[in-house]
Amino acid sequence: MKFVGACEYDGSSFSGFQSQKNAQSVQGSLEQAISSVGRLTNTINYSGRTDAGVHSLGQVFDFESVDDRSLEQWLRGINSALPDSISVTSLHEAPKDFHSRFDAIKRTYAYIIYTGLTRPIFLKDYVFWEKNTLDIDLMQSESNFLLGTHNFSSFRGSKCTANNPVRTINSIAISKKEDFIVVTICANAYLYNMVRIIVGTLLERASGRLQISMQDILESEDRMSAGKTAQAKGLFFLGAEYKNLPSIKLMRTNSFLSILLTSNEN
Amino acid sequence: MKFVGACEYDGSSFSGFQSQKNAQSVQGSLEQAISSVGRLTNTINYSGRTDAGVHSLGQVFDFESVDDRSLEQWLRGINSALPDSISVTSLHEAPKDFHSRFDAIKRTYAYIIYTGLTRPIFLKDYVFWEKNTLDIDLMQSESNFLLGTHNFSSFRGSKCTANNPVRTINSIAISKKEDFIVVTICANAYLYNMVRIIVGTLLERASGRLQISMQDILESEDRMSAGKTAQAKGLFFLGAEYKNLPSIKLMRTNSFLSILLTSNEN
Repeated sequence: MKFVGACEYDGSSFSGFQSQKNAQSVQGSLEQAISSVGRLTNTINYSGRTDAGVHSLGQVFDFESVDDRSLEQWLRGINSALPDSISVTSLHEAPKDFHSRFDAIKRTYAYIIYTGLTRPIFLKDYVFWEKNTLDIDLMQSESNFLLGTHNFSSFRGSKCTANNPVRTINSIAISKKEDFIVVTICANAYLYNMVRIIVGTLLERASGRLQISMQDILESEDRMSAGKTAQAKGLFFLGAEYKNLPSIKLMRTNSFLSILLTSNEN
Repeated sequence: MKFVGACEYDGSSFSGFQSQKNAQSVQGSLEQAISSVGRLTNTINYSGRTDAGVHSLGQVFDFESVDDRSLEQWLRGINSALPDSISVTSLHEAPKDFHSRFDAIKRTYAYIIYTGLTRPIFLKDYVFWEKNTLDIDLMQSESNFLLGTHNFSSFRGSKCTANNPVRTINSIAISKKEDFIVVTICANAYLYNMVRIIVGTLLERASGRLQISMQDILESEDRMSAGKTAQAKGLFFLGAEYKNLPSIKLMRTNSFLSILLTSNEN
């Protein structure tokens, strides 16, 4: 039997999503929790890798087991075996050939920028504190140059192993609520560190620290022309969309962040 | 020179506000940070003690020093010496005879209840997760019995050292936003654990676990008739009001919580 689930996690204490030797990963914790309920046929598949410190509200994963358990047994069992920084928020039966990574057609990330005057005491692991004044209109107009299908080599981390630097960005929305600015990006897929480099570049543009325009940066196809990679802790993977599995989009649950993100979802 | 300040803190890693031997307190951290800028004449005064695990968005404190520093020097110096779980959000000169505790005429607390179906990953230290369904209308109508001046012995923790159990509650507001219910209480002062016992009792009433009405509990003047003390981590001290110092009320800054609390302030 094959299952597809969605999970939230606080990435602060993990080495990232993907399993690594000698480090605590979200994947490792999930596989261990699943295995406490029934035998896994293989390692799990997932919609998108996230780096150390990056969080998720809707990572999609799938797994297969020959053991006979009800959905309820899987869900309760997995959650009771997980650390309190990970939560499986929903679980469904999936088609035999479903693959969380290969079948995803869109992936959405949000980056949370805090612009308050005082230290973000309660959200220190979940926001980037920008102390310079930002021109939000400029952030949106500069973002618009990135929409569509382009070679995103300028926004590609040096460790990127992708053969093809072409990706399609469907939307970038910049919204402000109280002291928070949220950048929400939806694309078919991403190069390594692409969201964090785009946000880092937008921050430098919007605070006047970088003079070259987003269009010129994009066209240069040169990482050196873009801004610094933004810190991991402000980044949230919101979820993936699937052509034949519309219910996945609905799996996300409310968290405090949904209050910030409500107006920005695709 | 006398100064009055407001501070936010995440109470998770502190033994409480008040200085204690062999434990890290907010007061101790503040006094250490102030002393790194100039000599303190006395220990600081503060508007209200908070227990271990209780947070604050607007604790008011005052201190005196004979050393000559500008407001800006005090504020920057103190904040740079504080741990990242405390932030002084504003600082003003105060009248020579001002006292944060004795001059406060109202104090406001908020208790945050999370009612989502899945674990509160990102707010685990800041909310109480209630898994039973709550009757919010009943919470409000039951709360109304507590308004005014009463003997609050039923809502008094066993370690309370107050001579007089009479307090005046000005308002109790129950509001719901997404998966959160916020109980906001404003009173002249509180008995030990009074807010947490009131909230714990409201939770038992609103989930049907406790049959005796709030009015009967209040009139019994007996701690045994009320519900359990609610967990510390959901409680936030929002601030104090002063007759002759209206600016203190404005000292609170925006934090993510202000988004939840906006509609509930007095």
